[in-house]
Amino acid sequence: MRRHTPAAALAGGVEGPDQLRYFTEVVLDAAADGACERGGPLPQGGPEAVAARVREVWPNALPEHGTGAVEALRTLVGAVARGAADPADPHCVAHLHCPPLAVAAAADLAAAALNPSMDSWDQAPAATVVEQDVTAALAGLVYPRAARPDALVTSGGTESNLVALLLARERARAAGAASLQVVCGANAHHSVHRAAWTLGLPAPVTVGCAGGRMDPAALERTLAGYGRATPVLVVATAGTTDQGAIDPLPELVDVAARHGAELHVDAAYGGMLLFSEAHARRLSGLDAAVSVTLDLHKLGWQPVAAGVLAVADADVLERLALTTDYLNADDDTEAGLPDLLGRSIRTTRRPDVLKIAVTLRALGRTGVGELVDRCVDGAEEFAQQVDQHPRLRLHPGGVGISTVLFRPVAADELAGREGDACVADVRRKLLADGRAVLGRARAQDEDGDDRLWLKATLLNPQTTPADLAALLKLVADTAAAPHTTQYSVGDDR
Amino acid sequence: MRRHTPAAALAGGVEGPDQLRYFTEVVLDAAADGACERGGPLPQGGPEAVAARVREVWPNALPEHGTGAVEALRTLVGAVARGAADPADPHCVAHLHCPPLAVAAAADLAAAALNPSMDSWDQAPAATVVEQDVTAALAGLVYPRAARPDALVTSGGTESNLVALLLARERARAAGAASLQVVCGANAHHSVHRAAWTLGLPAPVTVGCAGGRMDPAALERTLAGYGRATPVLVVATAGTTDQGAIDPLPELVDVAARHGAELHVDAAYGGMLLFSEAHARRLSGLDAAVSVTLDLHKLGWQPVAAGVLAVADADVLERLALTTDYLNADDDTEAGLPDLLGRSIRTTRRPDVLKIAVTLRALGRTGVGELVDRCVDGAEEFAQQVDQHPRLRLHPGGVGISTVLFRPVAADELAGREGDACVADVRRKLLADGRAVLGRARAQDEDGDDRLWLKATLLNPQTTPADLAALLKLVADTAAAPHTTQYSVGDDR
Repeated sequence: MRRHTPAAALAGGVEGPDQLRYFTEVVLDAAADGACERGGPLPQGGPEAVAARVREVWPNALPEHGTGAVEALRTLVGAVARGAADPADPHCVAHLHCPPLAVAAAADLAAAALNPSMDSWDQAPAATVVEQDVTAALAGLVYPRAARPDALVTSGGTESNLVALLLARERARAAGAASLQVVCGANAHHSVHRAAWTLGLPAPVTVGCAGGRMDPAALERTLAGYGRATPVLVVATAGTTDQGAIDPLPELVDVAARHGAELHVDAAYGGMLLFSEAHARRLSGLDAAVSVTLDLHKLGWQPVAAGVLAVADADVLERLALTTDYLNADDDTEAGLPDLLGRSIRTTRRPDVLKIAVTLRALGRTGVGELVDRCVDGAEEFAQQVDQHPRLRLHPGGVGISTVLFRPVAADELAGREGDACVADVRRKLLADGRAVLGRARAQDEDGDDRLWLKATLLNPQTTPADLAALLKLVADTAAAPHTTQYSVGDDR
Repeated sequence: MRRHTPAAALAGGVEGPDQLRYFTEVVLDAAADGACERGGPLPQGGPEAVAARVREVWPNALPEHGTGAVEALRTLVGAVARGAADPADPHCVAHLHCPPLAVAAAADLAAAALNPSMDSWDQAPAATVVEQDVTAALAGLVYPRAARPDALVTSGGTESNLVALLLARERARAAGAASLQVVCGANAHHSVHRAAWTLGLPAPVTVGCAGGRMDPAALERTLAGYGRATPVLVVATAGTTDQGAIDPLPELVDVAARHGAELHVDAAYGGMLLFSEAHARRLSGLDAAVSVTLDLHKLGWQPVAAGVLAVADADVLERLALTTDYLNADDDTEAGLPDLLGRSIRTTRRPDVLKIAVTLRALGRTGVGELVDRCVDGAEEFAQQVDQHPRLRLHPGGVGISTVLFRPVAADELAGREGDACVADVRRKLLADGRAVLGRARAQDEDGDDRLWLKATLLNPQTTPADLAALLKLVADTAAAPHTTQYSVGDDR
């Protein structure tokens, strides 16, 4: 272990790993110390206090002269660890923000150190093979009966949805249509709307939901309004961000097919249920979609980024093909050098597939499936505890994959808007105190009234029933004390 | 160090770093062993041989049962290291594919383990501050005289260019124009054309070049063809991929201003010259651009991804603003929680800024500038060696930033197309033998004839003159032996 490695030492080559050894020790020590000092799921005091603590040790982002590698790593990794919202803490449950597996984070270190770039074979000879085989395996899992399924690695669900819409737009153009109409549920992720905007498509038409799931009858009425001359892409969701709801895929498949519309499924959250023996059947109908968004940095326990777009037929990806002499000249391709450029809308690309490949080998399909099951079971346990709690109320929709919506009874006792403000305040109070990171979601209650709910997204397979009980006690106690949390609004974004 | 950490252990929390300790040891050992076994800049035998070796140890990407974390890390990291094209090897000089700094790779391990996601404050409290201050510092470097410069972190030059065009499209729309016309040099990166296609814009109009640089007179003629009613975005390049050429920015700024056109500069390669005392002046005029693409995974020595888009005025980023209740509800923003969603076209986002922040602190501006200078000097040394070599010919354009084009004299002695085939064959032969990774580029020779050249992009600050001499000997000797390298074309992509 070299304690005097220069700041400009390289990570690669024969020497690089040895140069890295002491630096990674420094990083791991700083991360452990930071977590201890934080002492909870997130730092105390809210945005201004966190910013002040970071800038106290790091006043200048671009100093004229350096402090050396070890000092810089200690200072910045320490500051970021002390000021992290740590998804490995059982009380950090706001978002589809998973605690990564140690094995995946370790594999990702190799990606950084070796730095293969996935845009040409001569930057990533072996990583090319790993990506090819992992994407083939994941595509086969989504489309077990397809002759030529395929998949791309993306930066996440947002990019997967963008590429799905881009491919659909190009199919529509190739068929001579002027444009493409996207139709999605009112429950669809904002990235579907954003993708249409980015691509210059008309705004998606939104179809009503029942219980947070797209209503097939409403889709039927919408599609009946389009003639066969207008190509339509229906975007369904398997695991909504707000409720973990899975659209009724078999019914939607039928409706879309009847109207000659294509179907894309955003399964960024729910897609990993395919790994679970117990729950894979909830995705029945998925393989009728022309494309499917997956995301292994949600249920999948990968460090960001680990997105996937699976397609039923490899041919649909040909619309991404692109030739540029420096990366995939025709004579190189003819001589047998693989052409990777059509595998992404990015050019330079980190081998995010390496950590996925290592995880799949380390745990196997059953091991990953067990982690999925533990999160689903944890959410069921949590919902039960909420339901039995005298001061908390469970959302009538129950558990969605591993998501639970609930409200303090105290909020129900207030008028609609004030009740919602109470819910939002409880969340902000817990954030300000550094005691819990809960999410929020709007959803209808039993009476069809739109209400704000606290949201727990359980992605930590190590969470115990006792952790969950402690979280509920925190929420109930916080709701019992009146407060309004106003972080000062300074010049921080 | 825990040798019996379970495969499902988490990277975060107080315990995570300790779980990671042994795994990172395994990774670093496998990377070092792999580099030794490879014994050169890339593996021998070409694509089929590399694929066969990977699949020999890793026959199934999705096994039913796992092998455990240590075995999986050893197997896959070992295979990828043995089969890497290693930019830390001085004979790996094909692309803008840099050898990352050990300090940056180590910092990136913390990003993976802590897994902050940059789409909301409650997923990344401290990392938010780091991103804010580093982007402000980089924006200030690009725009030293601007009142409110700003910058976004992107996945690379391709995304930076896409967002630049998207923002310009939205400005044009807001001004009531039907569309936006992009005008770029014939030397522009393919991502400019691809961005226009993605965004549904008309294909960019291409302006001729002289010596690989956009010709201001040709731009003048092109812009004269558009009335003021057609918004035009001129995209100039500061560091072309093929030649490292920097467009004549001051002249282009004048021409664009005269015609009321906006200017974006793709400085993915050249932008880091700003860190160099000796070479920053080459970018004179840069700060007249409305937006500038930078890329710290090129000259910048960051593991992928480390892209940046700087803008002269923070207001132009407002067109990316987006509100979605679960990430940045109005009442949360009013209460002082920072709104991060408008800082990217992605949603979930890794804190790529952490490794950049650590590098800037460790090396300081002068330390980074010295690395830039070493690469520029290395390229000058290489060009001189080529020029003095009896069997090699330097491209008449000389060095572009750190890029050198050259050809075996043997290729010049053949007819045009055969000469080009000879150049391509030399490159493929060196790849197949695992002895050197050289790039290729088409460029005009003294007589204005379009020719294929070997390309060396020198991004390794540790390369010595002796390394370069050895590389030239390899090329000259390979060119002296006739050969045609045909990799078998199987079902590998």
